[in-house]
Amino acid sequence: MVEAQTEAKTKTEDEETEVEEKKEEVEEERNQTIGNAKTEAKTSYGELEAKIKKKTINRLIKSIAGIIDEARIEVSKDKITSTMADPSNVCMYNLELKDSEFEEYGLNEGEDEDRGFETGIDLNRWKKVLKMFDDRKIEIELTPEETKFIGDKREVVLDNYDPSTIQQEPKVPDLELPRKFEVDETDFKEAISNSAEINDNVELKADEEEGEHFVIEANGDAGSYKDQIEIEEDIENEGTAKSTYSLDYLTDIAKASRLLSGKPDNLEIELGTDYPTVLRYDYLTFLLAPRIESE
Amino acid sequence: MVEAQTEAKTKTEDEETEVEEKKEEVEEERNQTIGNAKTEAKTSYGELEAKIKKKTINRLIKSIAGIIDEARIEVSKDKITSTMADPSNVCMYNLELKDSEFEEYGLNEGEDEDRGFETGIDLNRWKKVLKMFDDRKIEIELTPEETKFIGDKREVVLDNYDPSTIQQEPKVPDLELPRKFEVDETDFKEAISNSAEINDNVELKADEEEGEHFVIEANGDAGSYKDQIEIEEDIENEGTAKSTYSLDYLTDIAKASRLLSGKPDNLEIELGTDYPTVLRYDYLTFLLAPRIESE
Amino acid sequence: MVEAQTEAKTKTEDEETEVEEKKEEVEEERNQTIGNAKTEAKTSYGELEAKIKKKTINRLIKSIAGIIDEARIEVSKDKITSTMADPSNVCMYNLELKDSEFEEYGLNEGEDEDRGFETGIDLNRWKKVLKMFDDRKIEIELTPEETKFIGDKREVVLDNYDPSTIQQEPKVPDLELPRKFEVDETDFKEAISNSAEINDNVELKADEEEGEHFVIEANGDAGSYKDQIEIEEDIENEGTAKSTYSLDYLTDIAKASRLLSGKPDNLEIELGTDYPTVLRYDYLTFLLAPRIESE
Repeated sequence: MVEAQTEAKTKTEDEETEVEEKKEEVEEERNQTIGNAKTEAKTSYGELEAKIKKKTINRLIKSIAGIIDEARIEVSKDKITSTMADPSNVCMYNLELKDSEFEEYGLNEGEDEDRGFETGIDLNRWKKVLKMFDDRKIEIELTPEETKFIGDKREVVLDNYDPSTIQQEPKVPDLELPRKFEVDETDFKEAISNSAEINDNVELKADEEEGEHFVIEANGDAGSYKDQIEIEEDIENEGTAKSTYSLDYLTDIAKASRLLSGKPDNLEIELGTDYPTVLRYDYLTFLLAPRIESE
Repeated sequence: MVEAQTEAKTKTEDEETEVEEKKEEVEEERNQTIGNAKTEAKTSYGELEAKIKKKTINRLIKSIAGIIDEARIEVSKDKITSTMADPSNVCMYNLELKDSEFEEYGLNEGEDEDRGFETGIDLNRWKKVLKMFDDRKIEIELTPEETKFIGDKREVVLDNYDPSTIQQEPKVPDLELPRKFEVDETDFKEAISNSAEINDNVELKADEEEGEHFVIEANGDAGSYKDQIEIEEDIENEGTAKSTYSLDYLTDIAKASRLLSGKPDNLEIELGTDYPTVLRYDYLTFLLAPRIESE
Repeated sequence: MVEAQTEAKTKTEDEETEVEEKKEEVEEERNQTIGNAKTEAKTSYGELEAKIKKKTINRLIKSIAGIIDEARIEVSKDKITSTMADPSNVCMYNLELKDSEFEEYGLNEGEDEDRGFETGIDLNRWKKVLKMFDDRKIEIELTPEETKFIGDKREVVLDNYDPSTIQQEPKVPDLELPRKFEVDETDFKEAISNSAEINDNVELKADEEEGEHFVIEANGDAGSYKDQIEIEEDIENEGTAKSTYSLDYLTDIAKASRLLSGKPDNLEIELGTDYPTVLRYDYLTFLLAPRIESE
């Protein structure tokens, strides 16, 4: 790596230009002898070499792919972060995937000591590529220009997007919600899936008096659905809170279940009345705006 | 329940009015706090409180749902019955589900001692709702207005239909057919499914001479299918009988296999020549008109 | 059989006519009492009575059905053979299924000692019919006019096609290709399936220098896929060979995996540069023309 970079340096003085040239080179390379890309690709940007359980990265990508198609991600020395809103701004997520979630994580920096980078990835293509590997762990080499997936037998290279072409990072509102508690994420997922059979919306309710249960209720033309999920841990309890949310979004969000190494876990919910709700699956947090009935 | 009813009695003198009011109350309740419906709902109609294996009710509903979309059912002290024909009057079923098929069965009557009731249910909605439960047994509370499904964790309420809006009960013809025998219902189901690959019609034949076998035969443009199913028990044998039937209907009817607690069982068949056939799956009997070739 | 044939002989002197009459008889029989066809059908053609593992015949039919819809097959004393090209002449297969692949194989000839025959079969109908049997082994009676499938419980008859109505046998080119080697057929199938996610074409490459690996590479607009499959046995090695092929065809061809009794096996590949490739799955060999990029 160091060698390669030195060599690159001798070509141009203006880094900006070099990057441009490099991009073209990379492009050309890919079109002709992509197989050799691995040994030659280099930039003055850092390059992330990481190894992660396939299950983990798979679930993570699936969870986000329900909300958006393209994600801007920020790669730094000790974590990958991403905050994106869906096109209609009803739902946003915040991801903070620490290096400790990886089997291996190393950002090989340029001469600048701590040079992370931003890049854009196509979530549906990632989903397809991850399916191609039957390895338990997968090696990922990430540069601003491309992502290389390496398994025991095969390797796949996907071009990345220029992050400036992707929607900007949304502002995360500062919410103080009266209720905060944990429920079993599988119970939640089932209740959401059942509610979707009854209507498009669902009411989430935490009743002060019935403090032990979190109620999920859908009312449709033909009947109603009601589910009482046991509250595993009651963290904040300042009164009753209930809001109505779109089941389209909740169905996608609930896919984040078993995010952590594929094991069922608790989901932390923050809830207010006619307020956005916060749904926290370990290192992936969703914020979903309520539907206010205009009556 | 007794308590609840007494309480209701003190509220009004005119029972008719009470029911009306109750209906509105129930309606309102459902829209707002459906969760409490369970403890408060009551009418002067009987209300059935029953518990049944999910597998049993599931298969029953699926079997009927192939023939019709909406069923008029009659709930009485010791059984639920229903007799319906499909819209084109080619196929009819007769259901007689005795209380003994239930884990629990109790009709809480009004002051009239034996007040059963009639109501209408949407079979496709029932199918969807039953999928929501992973309980082995399911509690069903049935009133003329609604059906409440109660599992360990969740409850679902479906509105019922006014039975007067559903097609009237068909006349069941009095048939005396020359052949009556039992075959394995799984063998029958397979033969029907295979025949459907060859043609739209199938000939069912019980040959006097080959008394041990029941023959299912389909002839199509490209070839033929012939299946010889062993007759498990020969009940009535007065000559050869053969008729042709539509495979569309037979495919739906054959879904009633394993109706009884999910175990494979015998199917009783009555057959004549160019006559309707009677297919009896335990407590659910189908009657299917033949196709007469106009030659 | 001998008896039956003698009887047939007394009827007519002119064999040609007899066959015609027989055909009509068979036709009539099928329309009326197809169940008895088994004991009465006979011709002066040979009739093949064979028994084969359902798995074997199933995979074979599926493999060929990807290339063509109707196959002309030649039945002889000790094997069934078939050579067909797809309608666009890009891909052809050559099948040589020896009697040793069958559990039982007997061609009952006419008075001519070694009278095989040619007939035409509908592969999609065969696929459907094979699904109807849950037997481990299946009996097949093949005459020029029809195929009878006999299982423990059921029998299905399919009419055959007149082989003269089916596309003629293609000329098999005489190729001498510089590379010939064996790889694991499952590895190959996976690589083909993955490549199809990236593009419509794939490059197959055997590099002289990297003699241990066979490289499958697809380059698309969004990225690239590269798979290195270990060469299990290197049979012929005269230089580097690489050609590009259509993934549509390769996907169908790769279905022939596990052809031999359902066990994974090696696939023998012959490869040249911008030349057709030969893919040999035991007794079924495919020949696929390359795509030459017009640059």
